[in-house]
Amino acid sequence: MRTDQRKRVEVCFSPRQFELYKDSYEICVVIDVLRATSAICAGIENGVKEIIPVSTIEDAQRYKDDGYIVAAERGGEIVNGFDFGNSPYSFLDPKLKGKSVVLTTTNGTKAINIAKSIPTVVIGSLNNLDSVCKWLLSQNKNVLLLGSGWKDKFNLEDTICAGAMADQLIESRLFKAEEDSTIAAKFIYRSARENMFSFLRASSHRRRLRKLNLNEDVKYCLTPNTLTTIPILEDGKLVRLESKHEVTV
Amino acid sequence: MRTDQRKRVEVCFSPRQFELYKDSYEICVVIDVLRATSAICAGIENGVKEIIPVSTIEDAQRYKDDGYIVAAERGGEIVNGFDFGNSPYSFLDPKLKGKSVVLTTTNGTKAINIAKSIPTVVIGSLNNLDSVCKWLLSQNKNVLLLGSGWKDKFNLEDTICAGAMADQLIESRLFKAEEDSTIAAKFIYRSARENMFSFLRASSHRRRLRKLNLNEDVKYCLTPNTLTTIPILEDGKLVRLESKHEVTV
Repeated sequence: MRTDQRKRVEVCFSPRQFELYKDSYEICVVIDVLRATSAICAGIENGVKEIIPVSTIEDAQRYKDDGYIVAAERGGEIVNGFDFGNSPYSFLDPKLKGKSVVLTTTNGTKAINIAKSIPTVVIGSLNNLDSVCKWLLSQNKNVLLLGSGWKDKFNLEDTICAGAMADQLIESRLFKAEEDSTIAAKFIYRSARENMFSFLRASSHRRRLRKLNLNEDVKYCLTPNTLTTIPILEDGKLVRLESKHEVTV
Repeated sequence: MRTDQRKRVEVCFSPRQFELYKDSYEICVVIDVLRATSAICAGIENGVKEIIPVSTIEDAQRYKDDGYIVAAERGGEIVNGFDFGNSPYSFLDPKLKGKSVVLTTTNGTKAINIAKSIPTVVIGSLNNLDSVCKWLLSQNKNVLLLGSGWKDKFNLEDTICAGAMADQLIESRLFKAEEDSTIAAKFIYRSARENMFSFLRASSHRRRLRKLNLNEDVKYCLTPNTLTTIPILEDGKLVRLESKHEVTV
């Protein structure tokens, strides 16, 4: 009998479950579709030099006091006194090219900081879906797809994005999945993919953003493969994954 | 505009998420399809006087030393030195009629003990699905459906059972759901219902039980509506829900 040489790809629904999953993974893809990781991907592709994810408003304020450009979001809204929130359109501003930006959000930046115990952390979204998958396929490493969830709870849009990635990797036959969460995510993605907008109509976070008139942001975040850049965490800063890892779609 | 008078029904995937969900629910249905809550439902319908759920082997041993009949399961197997594990067939033994049985299992009994902060705790399974739903519809209370998961992780079979219950309650228009976990559970159930066995072929726990030659148990646990009894937690003991709450299917 041949040994099963496939690497594992698994889905963790939220940071609260991370402790149960973190062992033995070499790469973690952090996903917060609405909107932190979509905004980070947009920013890095737009030429932002680096994005520094911080977990608390207090940390963000210290950077602001030091003269940094600081983006801060809580509960879907820009925090008073900061430059902008986590709208991807803010991160597409040409003025940010070459600059450092500090970012704190309700869920996404917290998930990034929790993921740090895994050697390599990259940022995924629907926007850079195929690029991330192509790169993962080239790595031959065990992969954890970490949804940021909503305040530690499961959420639909991150699960769909993680399910889409798991599906591509498993279909390649280079990866296998053993966790029920991965089977469920892949299944939910396959059912949602024909019409993501209608599938997510009932999702709690989409309802939250609709109330805040953020429908344009939602459209941006739910459109797959508009970007090719993969942000990677290096020394606590998110930068563009370069050279030897470079992927083209 | 009429006020929305509907009660809430939500799904919590595992005990680890319970803290995030427990507020404001008046009834908790604890679900561990493979196999603890299926066995409890079978036992109570069979005439077992009461089932005492305990979380640890040490607690179970103390009851055993006091002369109780004690069932103990860990990792799918009977714990050495105890009378039986959590096979529903063990709980159908006619010798258990009128007796007290103590039970500890890997996931289910732990979930029951965690659920105690909600005023009313009942036991659900696919076996008593319609009875539980009919009773919940008669209660006009907010309901949390708590999956026991597998060692705090999400599992498919508990989610499908919870999704089936949520679906019935929401379809009645007496209940509404707001959490993404509930939307996902309902959706997974609807896709799985035509062929539960094939859907669950890949599930991690089913694989675990198959290795242990427990396919007959799996068949029993995955067959809906073979039982009508609802076990309810009273003073730390699971007994038959009686008289004023009695339901018939």
